[in-house]
Amino acid sequence: MKKFEEKTLSEEKIFEGRVISLYHQEVELPNGKSSTREIVKHPGAVAIIPITEDGKIVLVEQYRKALERSILEIPAGKLEKGEEPINTAKRELEEETGYEANEWKHIQSFYTSPGFADEYIHIFVAKGLRKLENSAQLDEDEFVELLELSVEECLEELKKGSIHDAKTCYAIQYLQLLNKN
Amino acid sequence: MKKFEEKTLSEEKIFEGRVISLYHQEVELPNGKSSTREIVKHPGAVAIIPITEDGKIVLVEQYRKALERSILEIPAGKLEKGEEPINTAKRELEEETGYEANEWKHIQSFYTSPGFADEYIHIFVAKGLRKLENSAQLDEDEFVELLELSVEECLEELKKGSIHDAKTCYAIQYLQLLNKN
Repeated sequence: MKKFEEKTLSEEKIFEGRVISLYHQEVELPNGKSSTREIVKHPGAVAIIPITEDGKIVLVEQYRKALERSILEIPAGKLEKGEEPINTAKRELEEETGYEANEWKHIQSFYTSPGFADEYIHIFVAKGLRKLENSAQLDEDEFVELLELSVEECLEELKKGSIHDAKTCYAIQYLQLLNKN
Repeated sequence: MKKFEEKTLSEEKIFEGRVISLYHQEVELPNGKSSTREIVKHPGAVAIIPITEDGKIVLVEQYRKALERSILEIPAGKLEKGEEPINTAKRELEEETGYEANEWKHIQSFYTSPGFADEYIHIFVAKGLRKLENSAQLDEDEFVELLELSVEECLEELKKGSIHDAKTCYAIQYLQLLNKN
């Protein structure tokens, strides 16, 4: 859909980092006037809702430098160049939790911050979890701790403020809906 | 929570824009090694789930330059400096949809992209909608079109790929849960 399209008049690349790059654009608005846009480009990501035999969800506690705190999240990770999202999901589940899953389902993909970033995250549900004896390692700069929580325990953590990122809130609602069906 | 804290060794401000600013940090990891972090700072935002008398949700179609396409989203907007989120929500609902609401409820706040950004978005449900005769105006660089969709119609749009941002997917699940209670 191209309704209300904004044409790029000029674009300056401000920064290219390990993860994101930043662009500053001058754009032409639908009414012919001009404005500026600040745009973060991101390689895309996956997140996994790992559900155990007894209906619990596997979460990771991780320090997030952007927030200067640690939060509980569903396992997630960035796409490597050219990697199929399902393969990223399998790799990240193993690296972050030591689990492999024999049942995978893609349930949704969404943009996280369409106002300023193109990050697109693919959400998978993983069931039939099996703990690997020799699981893949975390990235060198990743430190996580595992938790397995029921929906009720997730709702408690939401109240306490230890869970509050968009994909994990979405995952908890997904489980709530699953339990009601 | 400060588990696995990463200490800032140095920080460089790369860019300060109208909406976001970008920082590049060198950090000390929990194991004593160092790494780098790219961090986007954002003023925070609100999003509104406006529910009509007949249980439909009010959505706006808006061009998103970061995605180079228009998508359907729940109404949303950035916090002005020092503004209370509920006041931003009332202002944005009126500006983007021409509605005011007599029933407001804060249901959740979440980070949208904790891996690289501190954007924090407060989600409100608005009921008791009333169309204003002289509603506030959109920002000079905003162009939106309104739609009112039932949950079933939202699920159709999800399948068609015209809805896929995190807050709107969250809103649709919220409505699905509401209908099941």
